[in-house]
Amino acid sequence: MNKKALFQLSYGVYIVCSQYEQNFSGCIINTTTQITAEEKPKISIAVNKENYTNELIQKSKKANISVLLQTTPFEFIGKFGFRTGREFDKLEGTNYKMGNNKIPVITENTNAYLECNVLQSIDVGTHTLFILEVEEAEVLGENPVLTYDYYHRVIKGFTPPKASTYQGN
Amino acid sequence: MNKKALFQLSYGVYIVCSQYEQNFSGCIINTTTQITAEEKPKISIAVNKENYTNELIQKSKKANISVLLQTTPFEFIGKFGFRTGREFDKLEGTNYKMGNNKIPVITENTNAYLECNVLQSIDVGTHTLFILEVEEAEVLGENPVLTYDYYHRVIKGFTPPKASTYQGN
Repeated sequence: MNKKALFQLSYGVYIVCSQYEQNFSGCIINTTTQITAEEKPKISIAVNKENYTNELIQKSKKANISVLLQTTPFEFIGKFGFRTGREFDKLEGTNYKMGNNKIPVITENTNAYLECNVLQSIDVGTHTLFILEVEEAEVLGENPVLTYDYYHRVIKGFTPPKASTYQGN
Repeated sequence: MNKKALFQLSYGVYIVCSQYEQNFSGCIINTTTQITAEEKPKISIAVNKENYTNELIQKSKKANISVLLQTTPFEFIGKFGFRTGREFDKLEGTNYKMGNNKIPVITENTNAYLECNVLQSIDVGTHTLFILEVEEAEVLGENPVLTYDYYHRVIKGFTPPKASTYQGN
């Protein structure tokens, strides 16, 4: 098996965030996929079980997803992707709004966002695959979005060990 | 809800194929997502329940996925994306090889492929979300892959009504 074949799958780059009671967190994912085009579309996301965001999604049954812009600074990705929300407040100094579902949505470096409810949580080993129903969706701009390929090839970003796509750096 | 927000999610374009007894089919999907990086990585795919390929995956518990090249002709996409394998043999005139799992893998216009077993089938309404374990993976080339964005923006391809991302054309 040549696992480099998996590098040829294409993705976007997103922040998924959640809040339970007063506890907020958000993390970077590349796994957002629309899986049905029903009246309320369904999407799936995979989130590492060790991520604080996973715990908050499980508890609140809510997840808001921001589609990141191609121009997103690496430092901003690092804030959400390489530090845990257990130890500091990721909302501090970040532009966001309260969603209709009463949990925050990140609007900084964001082209569009989705507010979602959890329909199902599937344990797939290291990660949870959440099946979400989209309750609200807004477009904030029409600029190019950040792709996972651009993140690796142009920004020279790396993949943390907890990512679905980790193969060493 | 502005469903155009969903157009800002990024994907690749793939052929998923399967075979049960002597019956083969394959179709175009954009929903291939790596969800774990374990020794045998897991991926998820969403396939419309009306697609013949869905029926064959359910019966054989096998699915082989080809990552399409950016240079894939529209006619080739049409053969797999806009016609049903119930009525004609999609392998006729198509380059393929037999996978180690004894079902065909399309190698034409293909940069890399994955041979997979079905671990779980989740009914999500119009589509089935299959959780697959990757058993074999090969890289056939290093050329640019076809993204869903390129398919729409450059090839001017359209989205058929059975796709996860359909919103009218």
